[in-house]
Amino acid sequence: MKLGVCYYPEHWPKSRWVEDAQHMRRIGIQYVRVGEFSWSTIEPTPGELHWEWLDESLDILHSEGLKVILGTPTATPPKWLVDRHPSMLAKDEAGRVRGFGSRRHYTFASLEYREECRRMVTMMAERYGHHPAVASWQTDNEYGCHDTVLSYAEADLAAFRLWLAEKYGTVEALNKAWGNVFWSMDYRSFDEIELPNLTVTEANPSHRLDFQRCCSDQVVAFNKLQVDILREHSAGRDLVHNYMGFFTAFDHHKVGQDLDVASWDSYPLGSLDKEPLYTEDEKHTYLRVGHPDAGAFHHDLYRGCGNGRLWIMEQQPGPVNWAPHNPTPADGAVRLWTWEAFSHGAELVSYFRWRQAPFGQEQMHAGLLRPDAQEAEAAKEATLVAQEVKVLAESIGLDADELMSLPSAGKVALMFDYDACWSLDIQPQSRAYRYFFWCYRMYEAMRELGLSVDIVPSNAPLDMYELLVLPAQAHITPELQNRLNSYQGVLLAGPRTGSKTETYQIPENLAPGPLASLLPLTVERVDALPEHTQPAVSGRWGAGKLKHWHEQIKTELPCLLKDDGGNPVLMGEGRHYYLGSCIDNTLLKASLAKLSEVAGLSTYYLPKGVRVRERGNVIFAFNYSSNTVVFVPQNAELVIGSKCLGAADVAIWKKQ
Amino acid sequence: MKLGVCYYPEHWPKSRWVEDAQHMRRIGIQYVRVGEFSWSTIEPTPGELHWEWLDESLDILHSEGLKVILGTPTATPPKWLVDRHPSMLAKDEAGRVRGFGSRRHYTFASLEYREECRRMVTMMAERYGHHPAVASWQTDNEYGCHDTVLSYAEADLAAFRLWLAEKYGTVEALNKAWGNVFWSMDYRSFDEIELPNLTVTEANPSHRLDFQRCCSDQVVAFNKLQVDILREHSAGRDLVHNYMGFFTAFDHHKVGQDLDVASWDSYPLGSLDKEPLYTEDEKHTYLRVGHPDAGAFHHDLYRGCGNGRLWIMEQQPGPVNWAPHNPTPADGAVRLWTWEAFSHGAELVSYFRWRQAPFGQEQMHAGLLRPDAQEAEAAKEATLVAQEVKVLAESIGLDADELMSLPSAGKVALMFDYDACWSLDIQPQSRAYRYFFWCYRMYEAMRELGLSVDIVPSNAPLDMYELLVLPAQAHITPELQNRLNSYQGVLLAGPRTGSKTETYQIPENLAPGPLASLLPLTVERVDALPEHTQPAVSGRWGAGKLKHWHEQIKTELPCLLKDDGGNPVLMGEGRHYYLGSCIDNTLLKASLAKLSEVAGLSTYYLPKGVRVRERGNVIFAFNYSSNTVVFVPQNAELVIGSKCLGAADVAIWKKQ
Amino acid sequence: MKLGVCYYPEHWPKSRWVEDAQHMRRIGIQYVRVGEFSWSTIEPTPGELHWEWLDESLDILHSEGLKVILGTPTATPPKWLVDRHPSMLAKDEAGRVRGFGSRRHYTFASLEYREECRRMVTMMAERYGHHPAVASWQTDNEYGCHDTVLSYAEADLAAFRLWLAEKYGTVEALNKAWGNVFWSMDYRSFDEIELPNLTVTEANPSHRLDFQRCCSDQVVAFNKLQVDILREHSAGRDLVHNYMGFFTAFDHHKVGQDLDVASWDSYPLGSLDKEPLYTEDEKHTYLRVGHPDAGAFHHDLYRGCGNGRLWIMEQQPGPVNWAPHNPTPADGAVRLWTWEAFSHGAELVSYFRWRQAPFGQEQMHAGLLRPDAQEAEAAKEATLVAQEVKVLAESIGLDADELMSLPSAGKVALMFDYDACWSLDIQPQSRAYRYFFWCYRMYEAMRELGLSVDIVPSNAPLDMYELLVLPAQAHITPELQNRLNSYQGVLLAGPRTGSKTETYQIPENLAPGPLASLLPLTVERVDALPEHTQPAVSGRWGAGKLKHWHEQIKTELPCLLKDDGGNPVLMGEGRHYYLGSCIDNTLLKASLAKLSEVAGLSTYYLPKGVRVRERGNVIFAFNYSSNTVVFVPQNAELVIGSKCLGAADVAIWKKQ
Ligand SMILES: [Zn+2]
Ligand SMILES: [Zn+2]
Ligand SMILES: [Zn+2]
Repeated sequence: MKLGVCYYPEHWPKSRWVEDAQHMRRIGIQYVRVGEFSWSTIEPTPGELHWEWLDESLDILHSEGLKVILGTPTATPPKWLVDRHPSMLAKDEAGRVRGFGSRRHYTFASLEYREECRRMVTMMAERYGHHPAVASWQTDNEYGCHDTVLSYAEADLAAFRLWLAEKYGTVEALNKAWGNVFWSMDYRSFDEIELPNLTVTEANPSHRLDFQRCCSDQVVAFNKLQVDILREHSAGRDLVHNYMGFFTAFDHHKVGQDLDVASWDSYPLGSLDKEPLYTEDEKHTYLRVGHPDAGAFHHDLYRGCGNGRLWIMEQQPGPVNWAPHNPTPADGAVRLWTWEAFSHGAELVSYFRWRQAPFGQEQMHAGLLRPDAQEAEAAKEATLVAQEVKVLAESIGLDADELMSLPSAGKVALMFDYDACWSLDIQPQSRAYRYFFWCYRMYEAMRELGLSVDIVPSNAPLDMYELLVLPAQAHITPELQNRLNSYQGVLLAGPRTGSKTETYQIPENLAPGPLASLLPLTVERVDALPEHTQPAVSGRWGAGKLKHWHEQIKTELPCLLKDDGGNPVLMGEGRHYYLGSCIDNTLLKASLAKLSEVAGLSTYYLPKGVRVRERGNVIFAFNYSSNTVVFVPQNAELVIGSKCLGAADVAIWKKQ
Repeated sequence: MKLGVCYYPEHWPKSRWVEDAQHMRRIGIQYVRVGEFSWSTIEPTPGELHWEWLDESLDILHSEGLKVILGTPTATPPKWLVDRHPSMLAKDEAGRVRGFGSRRHYTFASLEYREECRRMVTMMAERYGHHPAVASWQTDNEYGCHDTVLSYAEADLAAFRLWLAEKYGTVEALNKAWGNVFWSMDYRSFDEIELPNLTVTEANPSHRLDFQRCCSDQVVAFNKLQVDILREHSAGRDLVHNYMGFFTAFDHHKVGQDLDVASWDSYPLGSLDKEPLYTEDEKHTYLRVGHPDAGAFHHDLYRGCGNGRLWIMEQQPGPVNWAPHNPTPADGAVRLWTWEAFSHGAELVSYFRWRQAPFGQEQMHAGLLRPDAQEAEAAKEATLVAQEVKVLAESIGLDADELMSLPSAGKVALMFDYDACWSLDIQPQSRAYRYFFWCYRMYEAMRELGLSVDIVPSNAPLDMYELLVLPAQAHITPELQNRLNSYQGVLLAGPRTGSKTETYQIPENLAPGPLASLLPLTVERVDALPEHTQPAVSGRWGAGKLKHWHEQIKTELPCLLKDDGGNPVLMGEGRHYYLGSCIDNTLLKASLAKLSEVAGLSTYYLPKGVRVRERGNVIFAFNYSSNTVVFVPQNAELVIGSKCLGAADVAIWKKQ
Repeated sequence: MKLGVCYYPEHWPKSRWVEDAQHMRRIGIQYVRVGEFSWSTIEPTPGELHWEWLDESLDILHSEGLKVILGTPTATPPKWLVDRHPSMLAKDEAGRVRGFGSRRHYTFASLEYREECRRMVTMMAERYGHHPAVASWQTDNEYGCHDTVLSYAEADLAAFRLWLAEKYGTVEALNKAWGNVFWSMDYRSFDEIELPNLTVTEANPSHRLDFQRCCSDQVVAFNKLQVDILREHSAGRDLVHNYMGFFTAFDHHKVGQDLDVASWDSYPLGSLDKEPLYTEDEKHTYLRVGHPDAGAFHHDLYRGCGNGRLWIMEQQPGPVNWAPHNPTPADGAVRLWTWEAFSHGAELVSYFRWRQAPFGQEQMHAGLLRPDAQEAEAAKEATLVAQEVKVLAESIGLDADELMSLPSAGKVALMFDYDACWSLDIQPQSRAYRYFFWCYRMYEAMRELGLSVDIVPSNAPLDMYELLVLPAQAHITPELQNRLNSYQGVLLAGPRTGSKTETYQIPENLAPGPLASLLPLTVERVDALPEHTQPAVSGRWGAGKLKHWHEQIKTELPCLLKDDGGNPVLMGEGRHYYLGSCIDNTLLKASLAKLSEVAGLSTYYLPKGVRVRERGNVIFAFNYSSNTVVFVPQNAELVIGSKCLGAADVAIWKKQ
């Protein structure tokens, strides 16, 4: 449980650098991320390298005992480089070149740009690979930010044709897999295939899905190129990339397999304002703290992408600049977010950024320091957290560095799958349906029950879980089917599970496809509803409303919830259950409470806006509401905070 | 009154074909549409023709006694063909090429593509023109679907310049007709004229109107090319095209003149969800049956495009895939839609499609069979209708084939004119105004009165009608003026009638232009209102609200409705009436009830959501509400159903 | 106080011209604007000049005693000219050429087009520079209409690079000024710099601001080119341009410096409907008169652009054609608008247009005459105003021509600055914030208090004002700082004042930057709120709601309003006050009432919808509500109207 900060020495006079490092140390910061946007400072003109500023800067940080996460600057190639390789630029869906002038002006598929990255990363790795301050490397920055995963340039077309040829072998196989006979879309060779943009109406969904997969694989390959260099020249350092919240355009699990740690950039207020997931009421209630499950969801998701290792690379420290509206956080919110991250297993929480820049696109983005170098609110809260970490360590009898060893895994798993996400969102049937939203609402329901949840990829080991939820696992691979067959805990599969083959066709036996062997039922028809049509549902497990997606199912399984025509909505027995519809949050929570009971899991009763998370023998409690609430876990001793939690407050308990 | 189905043998293994044909026959299907998207199966590579599958498929259908409607596959040219003629692709209004990857990837104006079509259609017509199964040909598929009538490519510009030169003779005539002096828009030659897209602000409305007309004429010419070939090689077969609902981008009356039958594709749920015509309340109330007048309106409109002959080429059989939300139809809705079509004179109702495809863009579009070849709901309802047709035929003493001879024309005509539609929508003055919506609401009001309405083109004979409504006949041609002068029934002209000349200018005597000879009045000024400003209107014929469009009129005619300033809104006497404003539905219904009285027409009192239609001595009653209602016509004997109609129910009565 | 009209003789047969001129005179019109869209009539083909029609037309107007404002026709270059210089066309932000077919099809930066303009304007100026009818010249028409200030074509890029080189001297200076180090955006030469469109995400705000300034300067240069020619060949005539309402894309103060008079085009109903400034409630209440402060605001703003001289070049006379909805004005509204203009110092109110055109884009735009040459409503109201002007002149003992000499300046100044507008809108932080809207609401509050306000540029002399309001003066130049230092009246600075440097950086001492010397405070943090979050504010000066923008301020100044955390919102003492948040209209009015008291200004109590304006010893009262209200100023004698004002009514009083 360590603190860090993102720092841009190149933005400030050298005369400030020593004072900055000392100030960081005073606050309790141990890690500093450096360098990820500095290409034009390192190489202002082709081949003319300026390392001296970075040498000096790393030495100063080192001399103050700070550890460095060094970023490769490949998210911001300089203008001269772009002018040399104009074909490296991405094109948007409308076919327009996305030019220089901000950042991320490249397409992952550009082989020319990959060569430039190889050159730069090799130079950096050779120079700093063994620098004593360098503890870690960050590859690039926020892959995919500003919608940059899908690109429609010549380089992307070339990559796509190759990718398809490799996947399908023959074009006849591709025609069959995509069902190209449908509208005379058959191809005679891979060279006839185009990108799925600018078509007259929707392109073939199989075509679109493969394009998404190919683009995701370009991200993986782009990252792997850097990873290979860094492993060679800087062995033993943690390799990491900083993912974003609410972002699914590439397969984070695949990228994560090549790295040592997963990190992400946590902006609770900006995302609340921007994401269509949230209702107007939620936006209003949680304006200054963010939604209670936004941080938690991503912590659990990315811990699953990092083989259990999680950092927060950028933590919002105050108002930001990029959301439609940018309010100030509540007093205490920065502390709340930091402890929430630690409770989910984060080893490091690093604030973005050290000092607010007075220039550039993000000049209205707060830092720990204001532009005039005075401490902003967040600096005080970070200082407090650093002290509290010590208190916690002491009270549970660990040295502060050992806190990392506290187990962070839960007994409940929710399967999140990028491929399923792409598949289902390509054809949502009801505009109200989104894979991510549905997963989030299932997670939220479990978290309102106080369950500590792991969010796992489809290839994760499942044996350690008492309860496994597949929110909407579109395609069940034979390999997953095998693991599910032997899984001994309680399984809940949600609507759309097993509804597609690998190449986006309807399975021969209809949904849930192969899963029908565990859940003997057939999805006969789908009722995809508008937002405001919410038919009633009720049964032994509760009553509520259907939303967005409602399957008509034929089954002999016992029904726990039925629609108002008496048709099965939630069904199953023993260890296997199927939910055929999206249902409202309250009924979802009630249903998951029943399943927890079946699985032998105990749950909490929590006031509105309150969340808990357990890690080893420590219980963390968080109050996202703006009321003072009382929360006392059983058989536990208070370590930090009080049983009365004010707005944005935190309490920490030790189990007895 | 026959049933049909759309069938794609090329999507399924040959081993299924015989079973499919037999199953169709069991349901009571007599017609099968085949072939319209199969170009790449017929000609997978240039000049290599594969007819064998189609030969076999037609033979199987024939051997089961099924009749075939054979589609020309020109809506889906294969990739190799597009690569040979890249200039055949359309461009959108933003100037972007609309590429291969779905369907309808061509512009009607492309002479190169027309030659390819000539080649393919000739081959097909020669091969199958006299095949005993082939009863009919469908040209292409859904002209204009996915906004493909207006295109802004080089081929379109060339066609437009030619079209203008032909229409105007000299560029001076064009400059005068368009009023190009207005903003120095004068041209020196036809070659200077551009397409009306990507201008700095709105292009000259005369320019826009002529472009719309030219594009519509390209559709007519494209269709005529195929018609001429088919007439030559397959004489005696019915030629047909399948139009779409709520679609006005080309002149369907002109296309219809070259064909034998009009058909359309009826998707009641999808259109309810998509069309801005409908209120939120209507969308909610009719979620699972569609709006009560959507089918009827188009049946009457397209019967008028088909010289009295009407087919439904695609009837929605379950949830579709292309609307923002895709709910399931109510139980009985498919039967309801089918009988509604028959009641308006349809000879054939053909379901789309036989078996749901497990691949491609429409894999979530239901069929009569599910993807696993089991019967879906609609198959049962179709079977029932086939049996009920026999009952009806017997009970009125006709052989089933003779049902077609029941007269379907009404005594009331509503004039619908594509040219008027384009004219008025180019400059609606109030964003709330749309020609189609206004026509629809007038039709709805008459249908709520139980009137059986013909929707007629502006060149239709008028003598057989007791009441004639011109909702908004923008330009009154001298020829139409003559027919109106001698018309002996009751005439109602609506707002904007006579407000434009042929080249989109204001008539010298202001609106209603030449019609002032029958309706002595002058439209002095127009009040074009926002949606929520609805001034009061009242008078001898009722009271209500003004909406969208309100004319300030000077006249000596008696006033039947006045605005709250005492100005005339509805005026006239004897046989000639003028309505100067859009008014709310209830007042519209009251006013049309009065006019029906003047015209000596009797009307029905119908419960909300109930509609009737008469055909010969048969009365059809339909319940679109979700309540059970009682409906008993006078002096009639029940043939099918009951006087208590449940939700989505049908009753059929024979007049005594 | 004179009336004028916009007239297009080229649209009508010569046989009408004499009758037109006589009819104008009968109404009381003295000025006629002519010629501004007539290039293709003057020069239908290159070099073939047709002046005869314009000669004749001017002679006829002259012979009827009418004065002419002659427009240069450069807003509508003919097609042949565009075909000769295709690079003169603008490109939109998406990079698409904005083609011929309407108007304003050129970019201001095109040197080729400037040469064509030089040729045309020189010919016109030489021919008509001394014509006895020509009293004034209008340059071009509505600069920037249809979003034409920002253009992204090659000519614009060339101009921008030059402009930057001139401003910054070295590219290093530019890199520093823009903070290009931020995302490796450093340039090595001015030739590397691109336009700020089509970037992956937001371009650097300093880049965007300089581009806006450069484009504005292109407008200034384009106008200056014509001014220089006209000054040379037509000395002594008033040079004028017609600005638009709610339009800020170029610096009107800079353009105004080169002209003699400022004029603008006043369309009260169209702008009410179109502008997001207004609430739904305001749109409804003022549907037929326009918002009570829309005309006034622009009269005061543009009088400040014209060194005190103001004309209305186009006054809406009835329904227009270009708004989303186009209702008819209330009876009396045209008179109301005309007198409102006169009360703010307008020398001339000119109606657009003489006779409604029956063709072209604006055929639904009303004129004083209908298309059939009959008088429309507005003609009657104009006639009445012409008579009332004589009554007013007599009653205050002036000859009608001397009315112009009535002083129009107020004692209160509101500073409006185009550069501040661009700066703050580039990064609004809350989508709800807009500089223009906030200035307007401050103006509205003062006008509801009956204050006569001058809207002044940032370089205006300030000594004559008792109260000076800086709504949001983003950058305080040293020169302005000096004038503020010596200013002796009461000063109110609003939120965001002093928050940016000249090159869009945060000042070293944070906001309010240099102004902290007068207002000792520091803006520590900003809370940028969504529309519906409106925290409470209260204090000695009233209570209400915070909106959109809320600064967290550290200061020792006395607090007059505080937020609910007790933080200062409105603070100050003596002559200097700072408001750190946007506040609701009612509290804004209360606060300005307090400040008026401090400044020794007397205010009015006015019924809702009523406004007054003083000019010399004349008091004008206007009723924008739809109720009859009573208004009686103290110590004044009624000259025109009555103390009971009906809807859209005017009363004029003489102070005793
Ligand atoms: Zn970031
Ligand atoms: Zn279709
Ligand atoms: Zn104008």
